[in-house]
Amino acid sequence: MSKTQAPDGRAAATVASEALRRFAADIFARANMPQADAAIVADVLVWANLRGVDTHGVTRIPRYVELIETGDMNPRPAIAVRTETPASVLIEADRAAGPVAMMRATGEALRKAREAGIGLALVRATTHTAALGYYTLAVAREGMAAIALAGSWPIVAYHGARAAGVSTSPISIAVPGGHEPLVLDMATSVVSMGKLNQAKRTGEAIPAGWALDKDGLPTTDPRAAQIPLPMAGPKGSGLSLMIECITSLVAANPLLAESLEGTPEGRRHRQNGLVIAIDITRFGDPESFRHEVDRLVKALKSLPVDPTAGEILMPGERGRRTFERRSRDGIPISRAIYGELEALAKRLGVAMFPSSSR
Amino acid sequence: MSKTQAPDGRAAATVASEALRRFAADIFARANMPQADAAIVADVLVWANLRGVDTHGVTRIPRYVELIETGDMNPRPAIAVRTETPASVLIEADRAAGPVAMMRATGEALRKAREAGIGLALVRATTHTAALGYYTLAVAREGMAAIALAGSWPIVAYHGARAAGVSTSPISIAVPGGHEPLVLDMATSVVSMGKLNQAKRTGEAIPAGWALDKDGLPTTDPRAAQIPLPMAGPKGSGLSLMIECITSLVAANPLLAESLEGTPEGRRHRQNGLVIAIDITRFGDPESFRHEVDRLVKALKSLPVDPTAGEILMPGERGRRTFERRSRDGIPISRAIYGELEALAKRLGVAMFPSSSR
Repeated sequence: MSKTQAPDGRAAATVASEALRRFAADIFARANMPQADAAIVADVLVWANLRGVDTHGVTRIPRYVELIETGDMNPRPAIAVRTETPASVLIEADRAAGPVAMMRATGEALRKAREAGIGLALVRATTHTAALGYYTLAVAREGMAAIALAGSWPIVAYHGARAAGVSTSPISIAVPGGHEPLVLDMATSVVSMGKLNQAKRTGEAIPAGWALDKDGLPTTDPRAAQIPLPMAGPKGSGLSLMIECITSLVAANPLLAESLEGTPEGRRHRQNGLVIAIDITRFGDPESFRHEVDRLVKALKSLPVDPTAGEILMPGERGRRTFERRSRDGIPISRAIYGELEALAKRLGVAMFPSSSR
Repeated sequence: MSKTQAPDGRAAATVASEALRRFAADIFARANMPQADAAIVADVLVWANLRGVDTHGVTRIPRYVELIETGDMNPRPAIAVRTETPASVLIEADRAAGPVAMMRATGEALRKAREAGIGLALVRATTHTAALGYYTLAVAREGMAAIALAGSWPIVAYHGARAAGVSTSPISIAVPGGHEPLVLDMATSVVSMGKLNQAKRTGEAIPAGWALDKDGLPTTDPRAAQIPLPMAGPKGSGLSLMIECITSLVAANPLLAESLEGTPEGRRHRQNGLVIAIDITRFGDPESFRHEVDRLVKALKSLPVDPTAGEILMPGERGRRTFERRSRDGIPISRAIYGELEALAKRLGVAMFPSSSR
């Protein structure tokens, strides 16, 4: 679910997306990534900011650089297709930056779907996959339907346990639409870690049912909240567990069990991912499909509105609006993030992006 | 999520699964289904009872027969593969009983996955798909991972609307395990229609956040509750909407828009479904996979237990226990269901199943 606020309170600066993209690419290139890969990572992160998902935007840059410096993210990975079948590939990502590995997967899933009707690309041993919606949207823009999943370490409570057992395991589904693709991108937790951290900073009480404290007890105190709860109890944690099975275990790179057992490998930053593309043109007329998506959107938007919600929104619609606004007006960067990026730029000898202060 | 109680209060009778299966098959055969198809439908319904999901069990028999009699379910359908690609099929179900169409899809998904690594079977124009977990479990028992989805008419509130806009659109995921497959089978609504109806009968207040009344207002009165809410608000209704897109719209058989617009076709009983199988042996050693599933289950079960939950359960674990108990002790049938089945048996000239009263 997209957030429309800068994550760290008041915006210190407003930056044109192109300038921010160039800055991010410069940083990653300086951190030893090939130019083309640096550009991909920059585009995926800045896209998240444009969509209003600031928790997955340039706020991640310092962490990505740190991961490169500690050896957990490989800036020059030997990405290779390890297994290939008529409709699938298993990609060994060699600790690539998530966006680089996931865009490779997106391309392979599209290629396989064109050949076989459906295409599966499994990615093992990647790093932070960033905003999954970027990849499913890329598939939808090619006229196909997409499902993407990602697995990571345990930070979300498993239903019935007083501790983290599963990851936020996001799921994204996108389909082409007449006007714009529909794109759902959601975590299987009630709330993201980013939102909990935001509440920590503002000090506002969080709703009951959002999180547990360090002892696994329910809390509404944002300073005590440490473990997000799964969405809809056993459904969310069950879905998250199955996502680990269908991505990490099928890709033969277990994450949750390694972390829960506390093995050395389990303490490292690592993720797995999966992209499925379905070539809808094989099953029906693509123009009719787009028309039917629009027709369904129209029917849903014609329902009586719940005044407490104010509006009936489609998956990805708020993000799309924020994208349009921020593409035009620039991306707000908070004081805290600006400071972190400035320090990093100075250390790496990269020019800071031009911005207008607010 | 499985229910362990008979849906209509006290059990009137306890029936051996084999007798109930024979009875159900006799009924469907008398309603003009070929013996083999009648046996499939009977097995899927009785399996749901064995698993404790009584809302999807033999309680559906009278409705299925009614659907046959009104022409909405075709007892002798011309099921045909309409489109075939190297990794997928689109099956025209011709209004077949859901279990018959979905088992055909399961077989095709398995076949395609064996050939191509991943297999997709889309089913258009089926009827009530019954318990989705039956099909994913069938795939997992063949050593593959599975995802199944189903779309139907709007009965669940769309987030932000005061009316039903999406269906309960269940999602099921299963993978092979060392001991038993893990199988998740969940609706995208907070609560099933069956559970709301159960509350209606007992008169007990329902929790806030479960349902809306006929005017789309939140209610805790079980008699007023009519529209289940989506799980986790926009996540549940967004997921349900995307399931409609990826099953019904890809299969070129829209359900939600037709119903919301009130077209004649939209007022008929109709569903669509989808089964994806992934051949895990292509990507790694299947024995290691099973071992890793067990290892993960063990790690999760070792977490500190939330005393209010009492136990840390895996997806499908409660259903498996109920299955074992009911396979041994018989399936409880409530007075109301017994009466309905007895009346139907009499009308169709089918012998009632032997049972022991409680």
